[in-house]
Amino acid sequence: MKRLFASRVASAVAVACALTTGLPISGLPTSGLRADEGMWLFNALPKKQLQEKHQFTPTQAWADHLMLSSVRVNSGGSSSFISSTGLVLTNHHVASDTLYKLSTPERNINSDGYYAKTRADELSAPDLELNQLVSIEDVTEKVNAVVKPGMAAAEANKERQKAMAEIEQAAKDKTGLRCDVVTLYGGARYHLYRYKAYTDVRLVWAPEAGTAFFGGDADNFEYPRYCLDVTIFRVYENGQPAKIDNFLAVNPQGAQEGDLVFVSGNPGTTRRILTADAMAYQRDYRLPKTLDLLRRKENLLQQYALGGPEQARRGQDDLFGIQNSRKAYMGMLGGLQDPGFMTSKRASEAALKAAATSRDAKLQGALESWKTISDVQTKRREMLGKDGTLRSQIYGIAETLVLMSSEDAKDSGERLREFRDSNRSSLEQSLFSPAPMYDDLERVQLADELGRIAEERGGDAPLVLQLLAGKSPRDRAAELIAGTKLMDVAVRKELAKGGKSAIAASQDPLIKLAMVMEPEYRRLRLQKEELDEIERQAYAKITEVKFATEGESNYPDATFTLRLAFGVVKGYEEDGQKIAARTSLSGAFEHEKQHAAKDPWILPESWKKAKDKMKGDTPFNFVSTADIIGGNSGSPVVDREGKLVGIIFDGNIQSLTGDFNYTEDQSRSVSVHIAAVLEALRSIYGAKALADEIGK
Amino acid sequence: MKRLFASRVASAVAVACALTTGLPISGLPTSGLRADEGMWLFNALPKKQLQEKHQFTPTQAWADHLMLSSVRVNSGGSSSFISSTGLVLTNHHVASDTLYKLSTPERNINSDGYYAKTRADELSAPDLELNQLVSIEDVTEKVNAVVKPGMAAAEANKERQKAMAEIEQAAKDKTGLRCDVVTLYGGARYHLYRYKAYTDVRLVWAPEAGTAFFGGDADNFEYPRYCLDVTIFRVYENGQPAKIDNFLAVNPQGAQEGDLVFVSGNPGTTRRILTADAMAYQRDYRLPKTLDLLRRKENLLQQYALGGPEQARRGQDDLFGIQNSRKAYMGMLGGLQDPGFMTSKRASEAALKAAATSRDAKLQGALESWKTISDVQTKRREMLGKDGTLRSQIYGIAETLVLMSSEDAKDSGERLREFRDSNRSSLEQSLFSPAPMYDDLERVQLADELGRIAEERGGDAPLVLQLLAGKSPRDRAAELIAGTKLMDVAVRKELAKGGKSAIAASQDPLIKLAMVMEPEYRRLRLQKEELDEIERQAYAKITEVKFATEGESNYPDATFTLRLAFGVVKGYEEDGQKIAARTSLSGAFEHEKQHAAKDPWILPESWKKAKDKMKGDTPFNFVSTADIIGGNSGSPVVDREGKLVGIIFDGNIQSLTGDFNYTEDQSRSVSVHIAAVLEALRSIYGAKALADEIGK
Repeated sequence: MKRLFASRVASAVAVACALTTGLPISGLPTSGLRADEGMWLFNALPKKQLQEKHQFTPTQAWADHLMLSSVRVNSGGSSSFISSTGLVLTNHHVASDTLYKLSTPERNINSDGYYAKTRADELSAPDLELNQLVSIEDVTEKVNAVVKPGMAAAEANKERQKAMAEIEQAAKDKTGLRCDVVTLYGGARYHLYRYKAYTDVRLVWAPEAGTAFFGGDADNFEYPRYCLDVTIFRVYENGQPAKIDNFLAVNPQGAQEGDLVFVSGNPGTTRRILTADAMAYQRDYRLPKTLDLLRRKENLLQQYALGGPEQARRGQDDLFGIQNSRKAYMGMLGGLQDPGFMTSKRASEAALKAAATSRDAKLQGALESWKTISDVQTKRREMLGKDGTLRSQIYGIAETLVLMSSEDAKDSGERLREFRDSNRSSLEQSLFSPAPMYDDLERVQLADELGRIAEERGGDAPLVLQLLAGKSPRDRAAELIAGTKLMDVAVRKELAKGGKSAIAASQDPLIKLAMVMEPEYRRLRLQKEELDEIERQAYAKITEVKFATEGESNYPDATFTLRLAFGVVKGYEEDGQKIAARTSLSGAFEHEKQHAAKDPWILPESWKKAKDKMKGDTPFNFVSTADIIGGNSGSPVVDREGKLVGIIFDGNIQSLTGDFNYTEDQSRSVSVHIAAVLEALRSIYGAKALADEIGK
Repeated sequence: MKRLFASRVASAVAVACALTTGLPISGLPTSGLRADEGMWLFNALPKKQLQEKHQFTPTQAWADHLMLSSVRVNSGGSSSFISSTGLVLTNHHVASDTLYKLSTPERNINSDGYYAKTRADELSAPDLELNQLVSIEDVTEKVNAVVKPGMAAAEANKERQKAMAEIEQAAKDKTGLRCDVVTLYGGARYHLYRYKAYTDVRLVWAPEAGTAFFGGDADNFEYPRYCLDVTIFRVYENGQPAKIDNFLAVNPQGAQEGDLVFVSGNPGTTRRILTADAMAYQRDYRLPKTLDLLRRKENLLQQYALGGPEQARRGQDDLFGIQNSRKAYMGMLGGLQDPGFMTSKRASEAALKAAATSRDAKLQGALESWKTISDVQTKRREMLGKDGTLRSQIYGIAETLVLMSSEDAKDSGERLREFRDSNRSSLEQSLFSPAPMYDDLERVQLADELGRIAEERGGDAPLVLQLLAGKSPRDRAAELIAGTKLMDVAVRKELAKGGKSAIAASQDPLIKLAMVMEPEYRRLRLQKEELDEIERQAYAKITEVKFATEGESNYPDATFTLRLAFGVVKGYEEDGQKIAARTSLSGAFEHEKQHAAKDPWILPESWKKAKDKMKGDTPFNFVSTADIIGGNSGSPVVDREGKLVGIIFDGNIQSLTGDFNYTEDQSRSVSVHIAAVLEALRSIYGAKALADEIGK
C-alpha cells in the first residue's frame, strides 16, 4: 500500500521519526536522469524528456486540467475528481482512516464495505480534508531575503519561518484559499501553493476489505495482484454536492501494454538528494530504529487484537497501516544495505565534488556542505529516539491543547508552523474531530509509550519519574485514561477557548502530563528545526552545484505536494520469470484457489455471487514504470489525452528503494484498472447508477 | 510457558543475550526471606523455614528420592521419572522441540499429537539428552585456590576455568558420569554436580497442541487455565527400556486447596542478587534490547509463516518459543519500570552497605564491590548487541565446527567450556543431530541476521563488508544456503574428524563465513568472560556480607540446576476478583465457548468426542505459591509424602518479575493436575495401559 501515513499511530510514528531524525524537507536526484524517472513539478514539467523518449508534449491546457482534477487527501494520500457532481476516486486503504471512524461494533464499514443508494445515505467523514491545488508561485527570493549572511541557524530558521508565514497569510487574506509555502530541492527553492480545501466529504461507496486488501500483508508490495483497492467519496459545498468544473473523463479500454501513462498525485517523501553520509545515517541508525518501533507497535496491536473481535476491529486500521510501513521500511533498508548502493552513491558524489572543484570559486564554496551535512548526522544520532512526545491519539490531543494555549498568545508568524492562522481550520478539524476513541486501546498505547520513554531515557531519569508519578507504566496509563475528560469534544473546545488560563487551571491528568512534557518537547523541536535549517542551507548549495553541472531541468524530492510522474505499462522479469503487466478479474478466483481460500485470500461473498455474471477477462490490476512513492496512493493514472485509465494503489517490492533512488529494470507502480472499477460497480455491487455517473 | 529456551532461535537469542550482556552466573536474594520464597539447593534445604511455616521436616530419604526421581531436560526444561519402566513426564512445550523434529509435512506430531500403542511405535528423539542428578559436592576451596590475590581478571578467569575443567574431568574419569562445576551465589560457592545422562529417549505419548497450548499466546501466563501441557517419553538403555529405581508414586486425589506442595526442577536463571545499578542496566538496556530482538524474530517468523501451511509448520516451534519469551520479558520489564521496585531495591542495598560498614574491616572491604559492578555495567552497555555470531541453526553448526577445530588442539582444561572432553558427548549429540532443517527457513533467518549485524556495526564496517561479500543480506543469504553442504550430517562428521586442516581447506561458504567471524567472536567472548570474572569476585564479596548479616541459610540464584521450591495450593485476588486455585476439565469447554471457539481457543476433536464420557469435574490446572521460573517447566509437583500431584507448566503474569524478586501476594506457579493427566489418558486418548503404568 502506497499510503503516506497509514494510520494515527503509524502517522505518529512517522511524524515522530521525522521530528527526531530530521529528513531534509526535499531534495533532488543525485545522479543523471534515466528512463522514466522523476516526480515532476507541475510548473516545471519534463517536456524535453517526454518529447525525446515518448514523443509527447503536454499542452498547458492538458496540464492545467490534470492539476485541477487532482485532489490531495490530507490524511495521507491522493485522489481525483471523476464527475461534475463531486465524485472523488481514491484507494480503500487511503479512505480506511475514515471508513474506520465511521464504523461501529455493529457496522464494520471498513471490513464489510458500504454503498449509499441515495444521496441521503452518503455518510459524512468526521475529519477528512481534501485539497485541490489551484496555483503555484515561486517565492524563493522573498523567503531567502530575510536570511542575512552570518546569521546563526536558529535565528535564520526563525526569520525564514516568519517570512513563510507572512507570505502564506497574505496570500490567504487575498484569495481565501489555503496557502502553503513548500520547501523544494532541499532548500534551494520555495514555492507558494494555493489550495481550495473541501472539508465536507461524504462516503458514497466502498467495497469489502476482502477484495480491497485481498492477500493482506502477505501480498502487499507483491505482484501479480488482484485488489479492488478503491473507494468513492463525494465533496459537498453548502450542503449540496459540489459542482466540479475540472474532472477526469474516462477511457474504459485504456492502459494497454506499452501505453504511455501519467500519474498525478502527491508523493510523500523521498530522500534522493541525501549525501552518502546522510544515507549512511538512514541505513545504520534511523531505519533500524524506525523498524524497531514499528515492530513494537505491530506486536502491541496484535496482542490487543487477541482480546476479541471488537478489539480486532478497533485496532485494525492502525495495525494494517503499521504492517504496511514495516514492510516498506524493510524493503528500503535491504536496498541500502546492498554494498553496491553506497559504492555507486559515493562515486557519483565524488564526481559531483570534482565538477564543483573544476568550475568557479562559488561552487567550490559548496564543498564544505558535505561536511556540514555529515556533522548534522552525528547530532541526529544523539537525538534519535528522543522526541518529547507520546504516540497516542488522546495524548496528542492534550499536547496540542497545551502547545496551542501558548502559541496562540504569539503573532501568527512566530508560532510553531501548525498553529499559524493559515492552518487554523485544518488544525481544528482534526482537534475537534468527533471520530470515536476507545478507552482500552488508548490505555494499552499510552502504557506502551510510557514504557518506551522509560526505556529511551532510563527509568531513573527525572522526566520519567515525573511522568510515571510513582506507578508502573501500565498502572499509570490506566489512571490517566480513567481520569481524562478529553475524549469529549466539548471539553476540548472549552479548553481551547479558555486558552492559557484554562490550561493552567485544568485538573485533567492528561493536560497535566502534557504540561510536564512541554519544555522537553519544545527544546527538542527547536534543536531539530535548527539542524533542519543547517541542512537546508547546505543542500541549497549542493543543489546549485547540480544545477550548474547537470542543468536546471530536474525534479525535487517528494514533499507530499502535487507531482507528475510518467511511464509505460510494462511487465518485468523476476528470478527468471516473466511477469505480465496486467491481471484480470477472473484471476482473483484462481489466486484464491491457489491459497486454498485461507485468510487473507478469501474473496467476499459478493464476488462469489457475481462470479458468473461478471466479465472475467476485464483487466484488473496493472503495472507501469511511473516513479511513485508512499502518498501517491489513490493517484489517477491518465493516458495521453488526460483520460482516466486507472488508479495507483501500490508499488512492487523492487520499488521500495525508491525513497533513495529509482531504477527502471524491475521497479513498478501498481494500479487498479478503471475497467475493473466500472465492471465491479455494475456486476458485483449493483451500483450501475454510480458507474454511469463517473466521468460525466 | 515456563520453558527455559523455547526453541533454537529463542535459545540462540537467549544465549546471545547472555553472552553479550553478561548475567552473573548465579546469586542470592537481596532481601530477607519472606513467605514461600526460594529455589533451594538439595544439599542445603530450608528445613527451619519448612518446619516453622509448614510444620514439615524433609527426611534425607525423602529428599534423596525426590532428587533421584527428578530429571533435567537439557534442551531447556524439567521432568520426572514416573515409572520403573523408564517413563518420563514433562510438558508438551518442553517436548515440542523434539515433537517438531519428529514431524514431517505429512505427519505434524507437534500439532496433532502421538500415541505409541506398542513399544515398537515409540519414536526416537533425534538429539534429546536427559540428566538425573546423582550427587553434589562443595569444591569451592579447590576452585578458589588457583586464583591468587592481585591476579588480573582475564588470568584469574583462565585459571578458574582450568581448575573447574580438571575437577570435572577427574570426577568423570572416576565415575563415568557427566560432571559439571556449578557457580553459585554469584561466585561465592562452587559445587560439583554429577549426573547420569540418558541419550536414548523415545516419544510415548503427546496430546494435540490445541489442548496443550489451549488459548495460545493470548492465554499464556494468564490464569485460570485449561491446558493439558504434558508429554510422556521413555528412556532406554542398551536398546531396552531403562530400569528406574527412583520414580515418583502418584497421589491422584492430591493438590487440594491449602495443601503444601513441593516443586523439584531446574529453574533457569534468576537475577535476584543483582545490585541496583546492575538492575538498572537490565531495565534500561538489556531487556529493551532483548525485546527489540524478540519482536524482530517474531515478526520474521510470522512473515515466513504467511508463505503457506508448510511454512507455518516449519516455523511454529520457533515462533511459539519467541512469543513466550517476548511475553515473559515484557512482564519483567514492566515490573522493573515500576519506580517503587528500584526505590525498595536501593533501600535494601543501603541497609546492607550500612551493615557491612558497622561490622568488621573485612566486610568494609566489600563496599567497593558495588562500584566495581557498576563499572562493569558501563562496559556491558558498550558491548550490547555485538556478539560476533549469527543466530541461525545452520550458521551455529558452521561456527561450532570452526571453533572446535582450534579448541581440540588445546588441552581440555584450556578450551572454551563447551568443547571440553567432559562435555563432548552432549556437544556431539547436538552437532550431529539428524533433526530436519529447511533451506527456506534457514535462508530468511540468515538474511535477517546479516541485516542485523549490518545494523549493529554499520553498513560500512569492514567485518560487515567481508560478510556480505558485495551482496545485499538477502542475496548473500541465498548464495550461502544454496552453497553449503552442512545440512548433511555426514559432511559435518567428516569436517569434525578432519580438524583444523579440513576446516582450513573447506570450500563450504558457511565454514568460510564462520572463519571470517571467528576472531571477532573470540575477542568478544574473552571480553565478556573477563567481565563475568570481575563480577564473580565482586558478588562473592557481597555474598559474604549477606551471609555475615543475614545468616547462611539462603538460596543462590537459579542456574538451571536442580532446586526445591515449596508453597501452598492457593487462589489469589486480581482487580478485586477472587481467582480460585483449581479449574476442571469441563471448564475447558466453557472457556472455548466464551471465546466463540475461535483460534487459539479450539479444543481438539478428540476432546469433543470424549466430552460425555470424561469426568468433567476432574481437577485440571491449579496454582500454588511455589517460587519458580523459566526452566521449571515440566517439574514434578509432589505432596508431603513425595507423591506426584501435578506438573508445573507456567507462572501467572504476576510471577514474571520473579527473575528479580519474589512476591507471594499474587505471584503463582501454574500446574497440570495429575488427575487430569490420568483421566485424559483414559477417557480421551484411549491410553488406559499407559495410565496404568504411571507410578508403578
